[in-house]
Amino acid sequence: MATPDEFYPIDCPFCKIANAYPAEASPIPQHPDPDLISPQAHVILSTPHVMAFLDILPMAPGHILLTTRDHYQKVSDLYNPNAGADWASQRIASKTREDSKAIGEWLPLVSRALCKTTGIEDWNIVQNNGERAAQVVPHIHFHLIPRYQEGRPEIGGKGKVDFNTVKSWRMFGRGTREELDDDEAKVMAAKLRDALRAEVHNEEIARSKL
Amino acid sequence: MATPDEFYPIDCPFCKIANAYPAEASPIPQHPDPDLISPQAHVILSTPHVMAFLDILPMAPGHILLTTRDHYQKVSDLYNPNAGADWASQRIASKTREDSKAIGEWLPLVSRALCKTTGIEDWNIVQNNGERAAQVVPHIHFHLIPRYQEGRPEIGGKGKVDFNTVKSWRMFGRGTREELDDDEAKVMAAKLRDALRAEVHNEEIARSKL
Repeated sequence: MATPDEFYPIDCPFCKIANAYPAEASPIPQHPDPDLISPQAHVILSTPHVMAFLDILPMAPGHILLTTRDHYQKVSDLYNPNAGADWASQRIASKTREDSKAIGEWLPLVSRALCKTTGIEDWNIVQNNGERAAQVVPHIHFHLIPRYQEGRPEIGGKGKVDFNTVKSWRMFGRGTREELDDDEAKVMAAKLRDALRAEVHNEEIARSKL
Repeated sequence: MATPDEFYPIDCPFCKIANAYPAEASPIPQHPDPDLISPQAHVILSTPHVMAFLDILPMAPGHILLTTRDHYQKVSDLYNPNAGADWASQRIASKTREDSKAIGEWLPLVSRALCKTTGIEDWNIVQNNGERAAQVVPHIHFHLIPRYQEGRPEIGGKGKVDFNTVKSWRMFGRGTREELDDDEAKVMAAKLRDALRAEVHNEEIARSKL
């Protein structure tokens, strides 16, 4: 029998997360234990194709990473129709295609959950390929980085998140990164999961109507 | 009868490109005339869902924008399953879902075409939402920005592109942008279309095998 270790490169921190938090019936984990691995993982999305969790070196509160579950280094390793005609090649092409589409489908939902949770209206999506492009973890990931309005505590201002829960984060520092505070992250991740669950719940309703 | 102007906000430069270069039988236009609009458009991909063309203020040679054909301002305006049960709402949800998936599917193909054309191995994908995130054109677009190795003329070195065709571009300046030279852009876009066509051609082969 194959073991999970054969599918997940042991040294990759994102494969470690994927391994510790397998896909369940719902794409949004109910109460994922952050301590299953070290450093803690604050997972908000876990499907057969993609995962999302908080960046452990956030550039702003709510900084999320959307990754593929499977290990690919660069976006160019995703969907490639230039596959052999054999069964194994076609199966890989089909899998990478589904993973590629899932990234496209989840970016809007995760973005809306981020906006609703933090009150921000502006954010960057950044995905780096290779060392010269500042890629650190060699496993495809899309950064979702909130851009808070300078001088205005937008999170608190809109009353959607208790400003006290994020006050120790450096909110407005573009380019500066601090280590994620595990207690604050736990609160943030729970709120993000709630917001994302509302999106997905609606999706289930929408599907049943189609 | 509805006219195209009713569907394309007149002031949006990317809607202007979408309007001037409608989707044809092949996703890769054969010989698109850059002078159909002003400033010139160097289109490399044109499908019912997405378009790709050269950035007119490139940060590096080969800087590509992948956009939706339809006008959405932010990624959060894409796929939203939280649609009404009525026909029109369901139709919009279905359209935004297809557009979202198309972005995910085309990013790997356009990325590979970019790598093959320029010889680069590293690149950034950046998508900005809102003014505070440095979004300039209010129509969703993903930047594909090549990262050339400093001190080594990689494009020429690998013999894939004549270095002379891009020598007047500022190759290594991260953050600096110069106006696109139309003659150089024409050569670059043609090479990118050839590379992308090879990807798509293979896709057609792959599909016929499935």
